[in-house]
Amino acid sequence: MTLPRIGLASGDPGGVGPEVVVKTLARPDSLPPAAYLLFADPRVIEAEEARLGLRLAARSWRPGAPPEPGVFLVPVPGPSWPVEHGRASAANGEASFRAFEAAVGEARAGRLEAVVTAPVSKAAWALAGRAYRGHTDYLSRIYPEALMTFWSERLRVALFSHHRPLREAVAAVRKDALLAFLRSLHVSLGRVPGGPFRLLVAGLNPHAGEDGGLGREEIEEIGPAVEAAAAEGIPASGPFPPDAVFLKALDKPDALVVALYHDQGLVAFKLEAFATGVNATLGLPFVRTSPDHGTAFDIAGRGVADPRSMGEAVRLAAAFSATGS
Amino acid sequence: MTLPRIGLASGDPGGVGPEVVVKTLARPDSLPPAAYLLFADPRVIEAEEARLGLRLAARSWRPGAPPEPGVFLVPVPGPSWPVEHGRASAANGEASFRAFEAAVGEARAGRLEAVVTAPVSKAAWALAGRAYRGHTDYLSRIYPEALMTFWSERLRVALFSHHRPLREAVAAVRKDALLAFLRSLHVSLGRVPGGPFRLLVAGLNPHAGEDGGLGREEIEEIGPAVEAAAAEGIPASGPFPPDAVFLKALDKPDALVVALYHDQGLVAFKLEAFATGVNATLGLPFVRTSPDHGTAFDIAGRGVADPRSMGEAVRLAAAFSATGS
Repeated sequence: MTLPRIGLASGDPGGVGPEVVVKTLARPDSLPPAAYLLFADPRVIEAEEARLGLRLAARSWRPGAPPEPGVFLVPVPGPSWPVEHGRASAANGEASFRAFEAAVGEARAGRLEAVVTAPVSKAAWALAGRAYRGHTDYLSRIYPEALMTFWSERLRVALFSHHRPLREAVAAVRKDALLAFLRSLHVSLGRVPGGPFRLLVAGLNPHAGEDGGLGREEIEEIGPAVEAAAAEGIPASGPFPPDAVFLKALDKPDALVVALYHDQGLVAFKLEAFATGVNATLGLPFVRTSPDHGTAFDIAGRGVADPRSMGEAVRLAAAFSATGS
Repeated sequence: MTLPRIGLASGDPGGVGPEVVVKTLARPDSLPPAAYLLFADPRVIEAEEARLGLRLAARSWRPGAPPEPGVFLVPVPGPSWPVEHGRASAANGEASFRAFEAAVGEARAGRLEAVVTAPVSKAAWALAGRAYRGHTDYLSRIYPEALMTFWSERLRVALFSHHRPLREAVAAVRKDALLAFLRSLHVSLGRVPGGPFRLLVAGLNPHAGEDGGLGREEIEEIGPAVEAAAAEGIPASGPFPPDAVFLKALDKPDALVVALYHDQGLVAFKLEAFATGVNATLGLPFVRTSPDHGTAFDIAGRGVADPRSMGEAVRLAAAFSATGS
């Protein structure tokens, strides 16, 4: 196989994104062999290197050249200078949007196998007039089949629904939509190493409805969707009690929990995988991963940000790229 | 202070209840000083002792005698003999109900400071014609103010609502009801050692509604309830994003998360505190705790059940009793 080309969007310059990117790429021996293309304002990266006492040894990227292992800098328009740390600003929002857009553009054109995104500020994007709820929202508008999944060493989770009010998320639990989701997820996971993955579908209600006594969605919607999926050969089972299904999947590398709404999945995942979790968007023609934390404006610019989640996001992107998804 | 009298209801004889009770009480040096009254069929306990190779050194209980440290056996009608392990039966259901009812009766009469309940099978109770959803349901019918709380070394959680369909639980998130709950919880926690407790109230929607973009309950119901509680001097704050509030409370001994529905709280708690969590019912005139696991019919009678959660339930009951609630 050829060396994967992995783009890194450096995130909001006022947050911890550039810091965790520099910390991660400064130790290329700890990363899988790949061409790492860093989409960033060179001044931001240089300032980060100087502050942290690290050197990326980044080379310039020659478009069209065959991929070589190492770190390459792809300049994008930067923020106003000096960078303002610690809060959302239009200039920082525009810079992080441009870096992300440039990396996605290269991936859409088939010149990157994966994009790793450092955290952006949705508020900064709004100030810059970029009306997206974040990376996934942007990608979902281009690729409506985009799937939000979360990966850690111990737990794997996919979200059937994500950014909608809980009341609506409950009403959206319908057999046909869930069956379509399970099909799409199963296909996307087929390109991920470590599979095939068993899909453990969570119930919606306490104790998975307790035979209808605590809600009927399990009987009328979720159970039938799981059965229909299984009949098609998709290794789906459930619905399982929501407060038990994550324990059931924990430390089972081939098990992935299908959570029916945002917090069912993320309460569990963030508690289990704090500081090391990775968000991976599947269902795209390329791989996209990101660390499972935000801009952390409260500690930005202090050099104390934990780069483990970013490191894991890069490793997962490389692993997923290797199978040629 | 006087020695607390702590009743233990031995649970379903076909489950792991008698086993974890015997394992716990067989090491009285590891427990706080108290009079431990075990409500059980003596034959069930003797059989468990023989199987496990443990001795309780249980004495007979003389009603009305001043409490002495040690283990005392209070005989209650037993199941059919020999005990059938590993599934719900009417005989086992009736036996576990009678033991629970007897212990609660003594507590209601003021002759016990606390009741610790080993797991029962709701299905077995139904077979026995005892139409309660479990211990908490039984207690809630006597004490409508009963509050479900969960305690582990690292995390504390209270449930605003518990056994109702998620759709109904969402609709039940109303300012007045939540304010009443916060008041009641604050009063009950006042009798618990380690306080005063800060109440971290979870939001209902993803990202706590994101300023109304992902749901309005935070703005219209939850926020106003928290503000009104705080104005009364209750140390409540929030609403916080559900997927962040548990991390915020983790390892903060004075922080307790108010979860708005069953699985918001229990997905987090069971993942964090598996095998050591304790369920404590507050708002009663006595203390009631139980281990945070079920009858575990699949491993019953094999001697492999983990008694840590039961041990913690006993220790918590003793600690809560000590403050004279």
